[in-house]
Amino acid sequence: MTMALENPALLSLAAGFTDNRTLPVDGVRRAVTSLTERPGEPEFLQYGTNQGRPGLRRLLAQRLAALEPDLSAESLTAGLFITNGSQQALYLAMQVLCEPGDIVLVDRPSYFVYLEMLAGLGVRACTLPVDDAGRIDGVALRRRLADLRARGEASRLKAVYVVSYFSNPSARSLSTAEKDDVAAALTEAGLILPVVEDAAYRELYFSAAPEAASVLTRPAWQAFPRLYLSTLTKPFATGLKVGYGVCTDREWLARMLHVKGHHDFGTANFNQAIFEQVLADGGYEAQLARIRPAYAAKMRALHGALEVEGLRALGWRWEEPGGGLYLWLSAPASLDTGLAGAFCRACVEAGVLYVPGELCFGDDVPRHFARLSFGVLAEPELREAARRFAGVARRFASGTQR
Amino acid sequence: MTMALENPALLSLAAGFTDNRTLPVDGVRRAVTSLTERPGEPEFLQYGTNQGRPGLRRLLAQRLAALEPDLSAESLTAGLFITNGSQQALYLAMQVLCEPGDIVLVDRPSYFVYLEMLAGLGVRACTLPVDDAGRIDGVALRRRLADLRARGEASRLKAVYVVSYFSNPSARSLSTAEKDDVAAALTEAGLILPVVEDAAYRELYFSAAPEAASVLTRPAWQAFPRLYLSTLTKPFATGLKVGYGVCTDREWLARMLHVKGHHDFGTANFNQAIFEQVLADGGYEAQLARIRPAYAAKMRALHGALEVEGLRALGWRWEEPGGGLYLWLSAPASLDTGLAGAFCRACVEAGVLYVPGELCFGDDVPRHFARLSFGVLAEPELREAARRFAGVARRFASGTQR
Repeated sequence: MTMALENPALLSLAAGFTDNRTLPVDGVRRAVTSLTERPGEPEFLQYGTNQGRPGLRRLLAQRLAALEPDLSAESLTAGLFITNGSQQALYLAMQVLCEPGDIVLVDRPSYFVYLEMLAGLGVRACTLPVDDAGRIDGVALRRRLADLRARGEASRLKAVYVVSYFSNPSARSLSTAEKDDVAAALTEAGLILPVVEDAAYRELYFSAAPEAASVLTRPAWQAFPRLYLSTLTKPFATGLKVGYGVCTDREWLARMLHVKGHHDFGTANFNQAIFEQVLADGGYEAQLARIRPAYAAKMRALHGALEVEGLRALGWRWEEPGGGLYLWLSAPASLDTGLAGAFCRACVEAGVLYVPGELCFGDDVPRHFARLSFGVLAEPELREAARRFAGVARRFASGTQR
Repeated sequence: MTMALENPALLSLAAGFTDNRTLPVDGVRRAVTSLTERPGEPEFLQYGTNQGRPGLRRLLAQRLAALEPDLSAESLTAGLFITNGSQQALYLAMQVLCEPGDIVLVDRPSYFVYLEMLAGLGVRACTLPVDDAGRIDGVALRRRLADLRARGEASRLKAVYVVSYFSNPSARSLSTAEKDDVAAALTEAGLILPVVEDAAYRELYFSAAPEAASVLTRPAWQAFPRLYLSTLTKPFATGLKVGYGVCTDREWLARMLHVKGHHDFGTANFNQAIFEQVLADGGYEAQLARIRPAYAAKMRALHGALEVEGLRALGWRWEEPGGGLYLWLSAPASLDTGLAGAFCRACVEAGVLYVPGELCFGDDVPRHFARLSFGVLAEPELREAARRFAGVARRFASGTQR
């Protein structure tokens, strides 16, 4: 890292930040101008409420109801609460559900900040088994649940966590069949666990919205306490940090709100008012319409450059994603992409950073994955970063470096 | 509460909110306009860092160094971190220091949201004894520490918490002598505990800044791990929710930042950028210059009306505060001002709300105090609220109601 920071020409494919070039500068100025010119008291500069602005909660519930036609906005509003990014909702969920030593079932791979949070809370992660294509393997999952039962650990299982749309890091979306089969396996095992579905990237698709409905709608999940999470800031402006959760379980919600009251007694009301404004006046939707093709082009720049540089011929594999901010690369199994390995060091020396895949696994950690983000860099930089990355991969493949 | 919410004419002296009439609408619009018109990339709409914007941290350190001339801004910057209001800093401090069953020494009375937070964490509060005038009683404190030692509970003591400037709820500021004597008593008892000094209201003085230096400066406290907390939002705009802490202990700071990374990986960068702008261009200072006389006038309106209504003649006592948002009233000892009592119910029926003092004590809870806030209401409303409050007090004093 010291080396990295000392190199001004370093290109980072590591940070999961968004693109400064498409941040909604005019949209934010217009929203703030509207708020400040509105007649009446400037309540948007006053404290809000712990659960969040009623108007914003209604608009978000309406938005979600449009994605999940079986749900009504009215029913969603009651369980909807506003947080400091979806990260806080995730933290609150785990803080109230888990004690040290408990176990959470997680995606394979999973969001590494979440895995670090679990470690911080002393909670163990147990991964949902996947097949070679990365799809959840229902047979192996049933075996794993039976093993946990046999080891007397089923009672330590406290939740399930899935990043179900354009996942960070895998860029995959769960199919309806995969999602439902997890519910079926848990039901068969008698484990009606709270489930957290993280939909942070759901709106960041490139051309087509993901098809699968969320656990809020799917019949297979109706018996489970469910928390659906998303964020307004990744699609709009990461500097504003407003996320939200929709919880179907009244007691779980009450416990999270109780703790949120102690964390901060409510997310900044001003930021919520800005989102209420841009959701109501179309500014939010306009920003999405602007960034979808922009991120699609950036994805293609990175993906295409890795193809052109011949990374596949070296044995690397990845899918072209339909949304999100990431490419998830599988290196030849013998190549160690880990932080402590020679490949990672060689990339830093070559002036390119990535996130080692080893950080993204809750257990049974493989060392040959890499997360590459196309969120931050411009297209020419993405192509140059791909050239550097593939250059290092070529040296390691040819055996000139180990 | 249901009664209260159904009464539109109800006047609330309960909420610790600020005054909508003096919120800095133009200041916020100007700051956002400056940010959005600034050439270069709009990094203020991008993710920030976990510890907070370096520029804001430097400006806050300079501001604090001006209040505490023995300290240098450079030395303060390293320990300074930005939070979602000072509430989050308080939560982080307790989360990393305390286990359930531990004990914290707190003011008498103390900030009731903090006491609720301690209860939520399973932590016990033990009050710093005070004399009849509300000053910390060093002799009684030494006895209490000896008692804790004798009961084998000294090892459960994990921190000290004081709201030292225009306290919520007492409106008192700790004198230098009181502050130093707490350190002396702890030192004599061999209890070098982490101390949290909450200075949320330090800048909200009416005419003269409080004299006592903080624990950051006082020699008596130099051996203690110290966390000084304050907020930008109470003086400027409560809807923006940015607070900060300065921690003198490297390990304590690292542990708080580690957990903050899991809570939210950094406070909204946009809000920090707004404060950086208004601190740099004088907008923050101008707002303070505007609200100090405004709150002083509101305090005098409430205080004066309670005098005129003859509350003192009924045996009630309070001091005229030099800052903050509160009057702290002591009723005749036989009068129960508690939530469940007849006096509180009669006030709701008369259309006036206050915070029962019973919520503000960590142990040995008296029932005859009341916190009245002059933050929200306009002067005519404050006078009407005082009239209603004193009317109820008169009925209870005359024995027409019990």
